[in-house]
Amino acid sequence: MSRLALSDTDKQARDWFADTTKSLGCKVIVDAMGNQFAIREGLKEGPPTVAGSHLDTQPTGGRYDGILGVTAGIEMLRTLHNNSITTTFPVGVVNWTNEEGARFPISMVSSGVWAGSIPLSHAHDLKEVGTGSATMKSELERIGYLGDKDCSFEAVPLAAHFELHIEQGPILEAENRKVGIVQGVQAYKWFTVSVRGADCHTGTTSFSHRADALLVASKMIVYSHRAAARKGALASTGILTLKPGSTNTVPGSVDFSLDIRSPDNHIVSEVEADCKTAFAKIAAGEDVEGLNTDFVASSKSCSVDWKLDTDSPATKFHPECISCVEDAAKSIFGGETQALTKPMTSGAGHDSVYTSKRCPTTMIFVPSRDGVSHNPVEFTKPEDCAMGAQVLMQAVLRYDRKRAEGKV
Amino acid sequence: MSRLALSDTDKQARDWFADTTKSLGCKVIVDAMGNQFAIREGLKEGPPTVAGSHLDTQPTGGRYDGILGVTAGIEMLRTLHNNSITTTFPVGVVNWTNEEGARFPISMVSSGVWAGSIPLSHAHDLKEVGTGSATMKSELERIGYLGDKDCSFEAVPLAAHFELHIEQGPILEAENRKVGIVQGVQAYKWFTVSVRGADCHTGTTSFSHRADALLVASKMIVYSHRAAARKGALASTGILTLKPGSTNTVPGSVDFSLDIRSPDNHIVSEVEADCKTAFAKIAAGEDVEGLNTDFVASSKSCSVDWKLDTDSPATKFHPECISCVEDAAKSIFGGETQALTKPMTSGAGHDSVYTSKRCPTTMIFVPSRDGVSHNPVEFTKPEDCAMGAQVLMQAVLRYDRKRAEGKV
Repeated sequence: MSRLALSDTDKQARDWFADTTKSLGCKVIVDAMGNQFAIREGLKEGPPTVAGSHLDTQPTGGRYDGILGVTAGIEMLRTLHNNSITTTFPVGVVNWTNEEGARFPISMVSSGVWAGSIPLSHAHDLKEVGTGSATMKSELERIGYLGDKDCSFEAVPLAAHFELHIEQGPILEAENRKVGIVQGVQAYKWFTVSVRGADCHTGTTSFSHRADALLVASKMIVYSHRAAARKGALASTGILTLKPGSTNTVPGSVDFSLDIRSPDNHIVSEVEADCKTAFAKIAAGEDVEGLNTDFVASSKSCSVDWKLDTDSPATKFHPECISCVEDAAKSIFGGETQALTKPMTSGAGHDSVYTSKRCPTTMIFVPSRDGVSHNPVEFTKPEDCAMGAQVLMQAVLRYDRKRAEGKV
Repeated sequence: MSRLALSDTDKQARDWFADTTKSLGCKVIVDAMGNQFAIREGLKEGPPTVAGSHLDTQPTGGRYDGILGVTAGIEMLRTLHNNSITTTFPVGVVNWTNEEGARFPISMVSSGVWAGSIPLSHAHDLKEVGTGSATMKSELERIGYLGDKDCSFEAVPLAAHFELHIEQGPILEAENRKVGIVQGVQAYKWFTVSVRGADCHTGTTSFSHRADALLVASKMIVYSHRAAARKGALASTGILTLKPGSTNTVPGSVDFSLDIRSPDNHIVSEVEADCKTAFAKIAAGEDVEGLNTDFVASSKSCSVDWKLDTDSPATKFHPECISCVEDAAKSIFGGETQALTKPMTSGAGHDSVYTSKRCPTTMIFVPSRDGVSHNPVEFTKPEDCAMGAQVLMQAVLRYDRKRAEGKV
C-alpha cells in the first residue's frame, strides 16, 4: 500500500471520502491544509464529536495504519444513516492530511496547524522529500484540496476527537486482548550523541593507545538499554554512522541517535540524566557496571556530546473520553471486559496528540499481527477491525449523550 | 602528500629514482609490474642484497610511509659511492609499485607478483578505484614503466631484503626508543559479521518483543575487545552498517567488520573461536560475562553469520637478517642498545611479507609521532630518520659480509 499525501491516489481517496460521506447525509468542509471534515447534523447545533485519523500512508505502508480510523468512522456514519438515528449534537469524521510525514517531512503536520502548534506558512512551504520541487501548498492546489476554510480549532471547532488505530506493537496480540483503551501518548526525546576519539591503524595500535569511538559507542548503546529497562522506559538507537569506515582503521568518529520514551516526562529525564553521567564515564574510560572492565585499559579517552533533536512531552488523554471508551467496551465484552481490554499508552505519535491540545481526545487500539506496522505485511483480523469500529461508534454516541445530559 | 601509484607525480618520482641511482653508479631494471631495481655492482657476481620499500602514497598520505625506506636506501648508495666502497656482492634499492593498494585495490600487489603469490594478469587487469577506467597495465604503458623484465623472483632474484619503515604506531615514541627490530608480521583475519533481527517501531515495541540487531552487535563488539585483550591479541571493528536507518525504527539488520590480529596464528584462531561461541549466545539472548544481563529479556532472538574476507597468516622474518639489524644497532647504540631498541612485530602488512617468501627478509622501524600514519600529519624526527638509515646501511653491509664469509 503506497498512498503518499497529496498524490494522485490520495486525491482519489479524498474524492471517495467526500462522495461517500455526502451520500450518507454529511456536509464536507475542507480547510487550508486539505483536512476534510465530514459533519452530520444533530438535533442541536454545536461543534461535532468526531472520529478522526488519516488516509495517507508510508511509501511502503500497510492497509490499516490511519485508514482503519477513517473507514470505521464512515461505517459509523453509515450505521446512523441506515438506521435513521439522529444524534443530539453533530457527529462526524475527519481525514487529517499528511499524518505520516513521509512525503512532506513533518509528521501530523495538519492537525498541528489546526491546533495552532505549527504555523500555516511553514506547513505550506514544506517541500516533498527526494528530488521533487513540489510543496504542500502547490500539491494542495494541484489536486484541488486547498480549502477556503481557515485551518484552525477556532474556524472548525471539534467537541471531542476519538481515534481508532492499530496498536503497531505486539502487546494486545501477545496477551490475547481485543481492545487497548489508550490513556495518553508517551513522552519522548530524540538525541544525536557524538563520540570523538582518534582514527588509528587496527594492526599497529595496541588497545592501550586507542581512543576507539565505536567501542565506546557500543558500550553506551548497551548501557542506555539497561538504564531504560530499569525504569520501565524505552531507549533505542536506530541510526549509527562512523568515520572513516575502513576494515583496518579504528573509527575516530561515531554519531548515533538515541530515542528515550516513557509515559512519564520525569522518567524520560531520569534516563537521560543517568545516560549522560554514565556516557561521560564510559568515554573517559571509567568503569560503569562492568562495561568498561576491559583487560587492557587505554591511556586515551574519547569525548562525548549530546544534541537534543526532538522533545515531545507526554500527552494525557481526556478522562471523559476514556470513560466513554471503557463503557463502550463493557457494553460489548460484558464480564470479559477486563480480560479482553487493556489500558495502554501509545508509543507513537498520532493526530490525537494535537487534537488533545484543543478538545477532549482519546484513542482506541486494536491488535497488530506480530506488532508489525509501516510495512505491507501489516495486518489486523477483520473481526478485530469490526470490534474496534463498534467500540468507536459507541464511544462517540456515549460522548454525544454526555453532552446532551450536560455532563461534559 | 598524494602520490597515487602510476600517476604523473609517481612517474616524476620514478624518473628521479632512476636518474639518481644511475648517477650513483647503478644499473636500473624495470620489470613487468614497474618495480624498479637499482643495482650497484660488487666484487663478485650474484643477486643483490637490497633495501626496498615504495614511493606511492595514500590519497591523503604522509611523507614517510614507504618513502623513507627508498630514500634511506638511496642515501646508502650515495655513501658507498662517495666513499668509493665496493661491497663483496651487489647491493641495491627497490621501489615496489602500488604498495598502498589505494589506486589499484590490492595492497603490496607488485611484490606479490614478484613472489609468485599473485598472477601477473590479475595484477595487470586491476582497475583503478573510483570512476576511471585505467588498469595497472594501461597506466604502466602510459607512463613508460611497463618493463621488459619478467616480474618474478626467478628473473630478478634478491639475496636479502631489508625494509626501513616508520612504525605507524605509538610504541617506540611512548617508550622513548629509537629503533624497532622487527621479528615478523602478525597474522590477521578479516570477517564480515551479519546480525539479523526484526525492524520495529521504537515507540510501540517493548524490549521484551524486540530482536534489536544493533544492541546485539554492540554487545558483540564489546565482547570481541575483551576476548582479544585476554589473549594479548587485537580485535577491531572499522565498518558498521545498519538498516533501515531511522531514529524511530529499531534496526533489524546490522553488518560489521571484525579484524582479529596476533603474532601467533593459533591465537587468532582462538579469539575467532571464542567470539563465534559467544556471539551465538549473545544473539540467542543467553548471558555472556554480564553483557546480556538486561533487566528486560526479549522473547525474540537474532541470527548471526560470519563471512571470512581475508586470511593472512603470520610472517616470521629471517634470523640472519634480524641478527644483522641487531648488530648494526649495537654498533650505533653501544651500552644503550637495550634501552633504545625493541624487538617488535609489525601490525600492518608490507612488501617484506612477500619478499620473505622468496629471500631472507627483515624490517627496521623508527618512531611515528603520536603513532599517526596515512595522514598528512604523519611525522618522524629527522634525527630518527637518520638513525634508521644508518641501521639500514649497516645491516645491508653486515649481510654482505656474512655472504662473503659463507655464513649465509
